[in-house]
Amino acid sequence: MNVVDIIRKKKTGIELSKEEILFMVNSFTKGKVPTYQFSAFLMAVYFKGMTTEETAALTEAMLYSGKVIDLSVVPGFKVDKHSTGGVGDKTSLILAPIVAAAGISVPMISGRGLGHTGGTLDKLEAIPGFKTNLSLKQYKKALAKVGAVMIGQTKEIAPADKEIYALRDVTSTVESIALITSSIMSKKLAEGIDGLVLDIKTGSGAFMQKLEDSRALANSLINTAKQFDKKVVGFITDMNQPLGNYIGNWLEVVESVEVLQGKDVPDLNEVTFNLSGAMLVMGGVVKTIEEGIEKSKELIASGKAFDKFVEMAKFQGGDVRFLKDLSLYPKPKFHEEVFADADGYLAAVNNLEVGMAALELGAGRMKLDDAIDPKAGIIFYPKIGDKLTAGTKIADVYCDNKKKLEAGKERLVRALQFSEKRVSRPKLIREIIQ
Amino acid sequence: MNVVDIIRKKKTGIELSKEEILFMVNSFTKGKVPTYQFSAFLMAVYFKGMTTEETAALTEAMLYSGKVIDLSVVPGFKVDKHSTGGVGDKTSLILAPIVAAAGISVPMISGRGLGHTGGTLDKLEAIPGFKTNLSLKQYKKALAKVGAVMIGQTKEIAPADKEIYALRDVTSTVESIALITSSIMSKKLAEGIDGLVLDIKTGSGAFMQKLEDSRALANSLINTAKQFDKKVVGFITDMNQPLGNYIGNWLEVVESVEVLQGKDVPDLNEVTFNLSGAMLVMGGVVKTIEEGIEKSKELIASGKAFDKFVEMAKFQGGDVRFLKDLSLYPKPKFHEEVFADADGYLAAVNNLEVGMAALELGAGRMKLDDAIDPKAGIIFYPKIGDKLTAGTKIADVYCDNKKKLEAGKERLVRALQFSEKRVSRPKLIREIIQ
Repeated sequence: MNVVDIIRKKKTGIELSKEEILFMVNSFTKGKVPTYQFSAFLMAVYFKGMTTEETAALTEAMLYSGKVIDLSVVPGFKVDKHSTGGVGDKTSLILAPIVAAAGISVPMISGRGLGHTGGTLDKLEAIPGFKTNLSLKQYKKALAKVGAVMIGQTKEIAPADKEIYALRDVTSTVESIALITSSIMSKKLAEGIDGLVLDIKTGSGAFMQKLEDSRALANSLINTAKQFDKKVVGFITDMNQPLGNYIGNWLEVVESVEVLQGKDVPDLNEVTFNLSGAMLVMGGVVKTIEEGIEKSKELIASGKAFDKFVEMAKFQGGDVRFLKDLSLYPKPKFHEEVFADADGYLAAVNNLEVGMAALELGAGRMKLDDAIDPKAGIIFYPKIGDKLTAGTKIADVYCDNKKKLEAGKERLVRALQFSEKRVSRPKLIREIIQ
Repeated sequence: MNVVDIIRKKKTGIELSKEEILFMVNSFTKGKVPTYQFSAFLMAVYFKGMTTEETAALTEAMLYSGKVIDLSVVPGFKVDKHSTGGVGDKTSLILAPIVAAAGISVPMISGRGLGHTGGTLDKLEAIPGFKTNLSLKQYKKALAKVGAVMIGQTKEIAPADKEIYALRDVTSTVESIALITSSIMSKKLAEGIDGLVLDIKTGSGAFMQKLEDSRALANSLINTAKQFDKKVVGFITDMNQPLGNYIGNWLEVVESVEVLQGKDVPDLNEVTFNLSGAMLVMGGVVKTIEEGIEKSKELIASGKAFDKFVEMAKFQGGDVRFLKDLSLYPKPKFHEEVFADADGYLAAVNNLEVGMAALELGAGRMKLDDAIDPKAGIIFYPKIGDKLTAGTKIADVYCDNKKKLEAGKERLVRALQFSEKRVSRPKLIREIIQ
């Protein structure tokens, strides 16, 4: 097989065979295809896309560049949830213990925050002592004992993805449905799951801002999961404003614990319980998502979900005193409040900018090796469509650095749009794709 | 300036500034932009194209990566001709001496044959002793003394083009109007010319097979030349069959000498005299192309054009005895004739395949360091539209290797299509663009 021929085919829109795609990826990871050819190939894929079969082949090549974890020692159904990321999206921390409390295993390999989006690993590591770098042996043990485990990508998992992602990052080939799909699915399929619930965000704080792009990504992910005989369901959910009220790593642990202890955070709970509900359907615990939502609420009301969260945190080295008494956590040095300066409706949120404001405060990172401050963040109270009167508190802003506090606060304020006229609230669950 | 931003802009169709393009090329040639980013950039250019201003900036960056030859020591107008290449295209060998014989300087930096197309340098080097690797000093001297000189690209000329072309070759980004234009024009502008006549081939043996693509390339080349304040005219000419009858390096020297000595090869002469005519118009020798065609014929009839060719060959080390007596040249070991096996009209020629047949005989090369046999080639007699009767000779095929002779002959025969019905002859000069 000839590399230039394969690039030419892709470039001119001819479908590649499975063999050609496996050859490209395997040769690239072995150093036999130089990066300059692979980056040209990636750009051609960006422009021409990939069919379901091509995407599945690319996913397969990346998946088998590493280990596929064998979870046959763990009995029962294993299901994970994947979100395309957003601002204040802490659903994993709530739904994993809910689903595990119902007897379904939840093996999660998660990522870190980058740019305006947060990452599950960073949130978990805000819990003192919590380790996300378990070995695959410990991962299996945690799953068998606790029923839920959350770790970072290990070297054994889809190493081709890491290499290809690094190249995409520096060649402006990130925003490609086929490449995003294969990157996500190669890692998810490596977890050893039987089913996957997808939360594809749409809106100003999402990776895909337009609904049609989110839908295209959802379909690509779902089709690929099906090619590997996995149960799958996709939710397209709104990300035009933060999910819940807390943004920042420890702050999101706090809100998750509060929800697990029974607090009603309407938008956060609606999305979380839909996702956990779908996971419970897949696992055979309930018949419909609606029943799954009710079951999720029951598991919270009984205290079982919170207990499972504490159990999981403990197993992974977390100091659970901080979860049982949230007030024990160290306080950020500085705090400022933001108030509405006139009467009006919250009309729109530039949610990407809200995420960037949180990053500015220290809650996020621009590069993967930047340090983050777990205490930094924002509590953002209103939702689009809310009527505010002058003097109402809009947000609390937390930071250890006075200068950054001011910069973050200003960025947050600039991200908001008010209107004198009534504004309709965005629909939260936009579509469910089976 | 940020490389990823520049790639992203190009990818999304935002016009790049001159500074951004200069930055990309200069950083690449200095090794500051890695090849994998530059190849992704090239693929984005392939898909999104470039505006006239962007193409001019790219050309400028490549041009000034090397030396622009100062021909101010040579008095008068300097004009070159560039062809996009084809099968049997030996017009340079005929028109350069014609134009020089009229007192206009013709500084030519030419290329080698690759794939199915021949190259001027290979044809000239078929003349024993002929040197094409003159220094820039010798180049100027030749021009001042003889009025015409033909050399290969030197290290000083547009080195960025060499590097970029090598990368395009292995990343399937050759067929891009903007990239072709900047590659051609950066080299042509470095010659120190005042004017340029372009011969853009169209048809089955051309780089651009479709007329609209040839026209797009013609316009891009012309617009770029104008951005650099050069006089320019473009001809789109037919390449659906070989130009003239002789294909192969020495064979094309033979046909050129015969034309310079007065032979009428209708299609070859029509294209050549149109091009030389336009060059004479540019140089101010005549007022119209028609007058230029007449002037070209006169310069042949008077023997001045052939004398100039001999003078040029002599200056560049060629053994001119072979030009004065063509029969002195060594003969190929094997020769075979091809005959029509039925009555009919020659309906179509896959001219790319005719070029590949010549390559197979040893007249061309697949890679730039492959050896070629100057004696190998084809004399192909009929033209599309000609009526042949069974037994008419179609071609003579020459080669030093019996096996290759058979392979080349077969490939030639397969490239021809016959019809019982009358077939119209393709128009030779398709368009003239000023």
